[in-house]
Amino acid sequence: MTKGRLEAFSDGVIAILITIMVLELKIPHGADWAALRTILPTFLSYVLSFVFLGIYWNNHHHMFQAAERVDGRILWANLHLLFWLSLVPFSTSWMGDNGLQPLPVAIYGAVLLLAAIAYTILQRSIILQHGKRSKLATAVGKDLKGKLSLLGYASAIPLAFAYAPAAIALYVVIALVWLVPDTRIEEKLEK
Amino acid sequence: MTKGRLEAFSDGVIAILITIMVLELKIPHGADWAALRTILPTFLSYVLSFVFLGIYWNNHHHMFQAAERVDGRILWANLHLLFWLSLVPFSTSWMGDNGLQPLPVAIYGAVLLLAAIAYTILQRSIILQHGKRSKLATAVGKDLKGKLSLLGYASAIPLAFAYAPAAIALYVVIALVWLVPDTRIEEKLEK
Amino acid sequence: MTKGRLEAFSDGVIAILITIMVLELKIPHGADWAALRTILPTFLSYVLSFVFLGIYWNNHHHMFQAAERVDGRILWANLHLLFWLSLVPFSTSWMGDNGLQPLPVAIYGAVLLLAAIAYTILQRSIILQHGKRSKLATAVGKDLKGKLSLLGYASAIPLAFAYAPAAIALYVVIALVWLVPDTRIEEKLEK
Amino acid sequence: MTKGRLEAFSDGVIAILITIMVLELKIPHGADWAALRTILPTFLSYVLSFVFLGIYWNNHHHMFQAAERVDGRILWANLHLLFWLSLVPFSTSWMGDNGLQPLPVAIYGAVLLLAAIAYTILQRSIILQHGKRSKLATAVGKDLKGKLSLLGYASAIPLAFAYAPAAIALYVVIALVWLVPDTRIEEKLEK
Repeated sequence: MTKGRLEAFSDGVIAILITIMVLELKIPHGADWAALRTILPTFLSYVLSFVFLGIYWNNHHHMFQAAERVDGRILWANLHLLFWLSLVPFSTSWMGDNGLQPLPVAIYGAVLLLAAIAYTILQRSIILQHGKRSKLATAVGKDLKGKLSLLGYASAIPLAFAYAPAAIALYVVIALVWLVPDTRIEEKLEK
Repeated sequence: MTKGRLEAFSDGVIAILITIMVLELKIPHGADWAALRTILPTFLSYVLSFVFLGIYWNNHHHMFQAAERVDGRILWANLHLLFWLSLVPFSTSWMGDNGLQPLPVAIYGAVLLLAAIAYTILQRSIILQHGKRSKLATAVGKDLKGKLSLLGYASAIPLAFAYAPAAIALYVVIALVWLVPDTRIEEKLEK
Repeated sequence: MTKGRLEAFSDGVIAILITIMVLELKIPHGADWAALRTILPTFLSYVLSFVFLGIYWNNHHHMFQAAERVDGRILWANLHLLFWLSLVPFSTSWMGDNGLQPLPVAIYGAVLLLAAIAYTILQRSIILQHGKRSKLATAVGKDLKGKLSLLGYASAIPLAFAYAPAAIALYVVIALVWLVPDTRIEEKLEK
Repeated sequence: MTKGRLEAFSDGVIAILITIMVLELKIPHGADWAALRTILPTFLSYVLSFVFLGIYWNNHHHMFQAAERVDGRILWANLHLLFWLSLVPFSTSWMGDNGLQPLPVAIYGAVLLLAAIAYTILQRSIILQHGKRSKLATAVGKDLKGKLSLLGYASAIPLAFAYAPAAIALYVVIALVWLVPDTRIEEKLEK
């Protein structure tokens, strides 16, 4: 089975999610700086989520670059990942609209954690298909960055109830870690 | 005529439908658990419809994997399927917003029934094009799963008026039956 | 320049337009037949517009099947067509919300007329690129169906002010004429 | 790494942005000319932004036509461009809803300026990958048109506070300059 349609469908869903979030940037009442300032928290949440969805698209692109074929298990593991990503716009606006309230900040982290778990499952399904000596398996290696992110999201959830700004800072740190391009797969493919 | 554009267009429509539904998950007023609980029925309807649209995408993918060419009849049979699928977000939110009211639960089943009928018509149009000994025709066989689903949706509609939760349970059962990956076409293609 | 991206972009825009219209099917207040009946006019407008956009996608697909290369002029002629098609959801809801009021019915026809003119311009740009003896040029021929549709839309606009239901009947007739698959290009390609 | 998915993803995002803007064309209350006139400013803003997004899609198409491979840097430079483009619908409606107020007109220019800067960065990243003697590098040349546009947007921002209609006129002029098809890359590719 070819991977083309799976890639196209995932591209479509992520492209829609990344743009649907902007619809939540409600046009402010009034045309001055004060009006613009009211949408600042929602705007900043949007920037953070745009970066997270961009990271997922980027890593998804790299991962399937190294994959050669897909089966039914991989199709569903991919839909499972898209399901959690589809909740990002909702959790982004809820967090943006409520400033630094604990529960929305924790739920935002929970959605990111579940998406990261789904990504790990998808990665394992592909490695299972292609074997432990496949390009992807050697490129992923011990996946330290992936495991640290899971730990980071899991820590941010209780942290949000103690002190919400610290949880948000943790999300920003994880995003920055991933923004540094993941050259592992690129390097392996070039060899 | 190549099948590439038909697949890309269908991917686009299904990707949009699957993500548009999330827009109906209205941001709750308030930032506590009580506020979150108010969107639970809509959320559960969303999960169910996400799974149904995922199943359709998956089966569509498998079916066209086995197809080689398309004609005008197949293009319209495909648009007919997309029409009924496009009503899924509407029927999902109406059911989610009204809890267990009979009519929305029945209409939800009617939309699923009409989509399933459209899928059957599309499948027959492709087999008509490719012949009774084509890969798709032998892979589909008697299509027991498809026929049982049609029967299931048709039974759920009157059931909704008698006892709505039973109709919803029937939808969940049909979804679970399809979640078990349909290995028939995959196996035939490998031979 | 390859035609692949132009097709993909057009597919994306038409897929979004066809699904965005459903968002205008507002969830009715109440869960009974009376509530459902209130959205009937909007639903019927949606069905009509779904068919028109389906016809455009279908014809676009056929036309570019017969095209081999695109240039800057064709890119802009295509964007011009997409612009008028993008106004279909707006004119559909305005007509649906206002029942049989003359102005919305006339504007609906005007949008269809302008889209049809844009389609004709796009068709001519492609023929200009490929020559008068190209497959597309001979397949289109005198384009009687296209010219009659232009006449139909142009007549429907004044008709809407005289008697709106007659204009709507005319739209339905034009849609039905196109629903009969356009086998001209398919036949030419087979030869 | 192939450029196919980057193109498909960008097509998806731009297709959605171009159509999402229409959702802001709120259905007017009433069915007469007076009601239609109330949405005229928003409609005109939509036309202008449709043209700008069309120009970006067109230029993006041409630029990647001349590119052969992409790396992590290009992926992120592209996402950066899509981020600023994703703010176009928001700034369009804010400007459209407020007529000729200085701040929304200035913010509209700022979004266009930042998108143009992002486009320049993306162009440089591709040239960096392909070398100074690559097709793209020679086709772009000194990029006078690009530099003049940057200057135009930058001038429009202070101008908006002095006399908003002049800033809008400047946007229209820049759009018209780009509407004249950019034949540079097409010509170089033909050689």
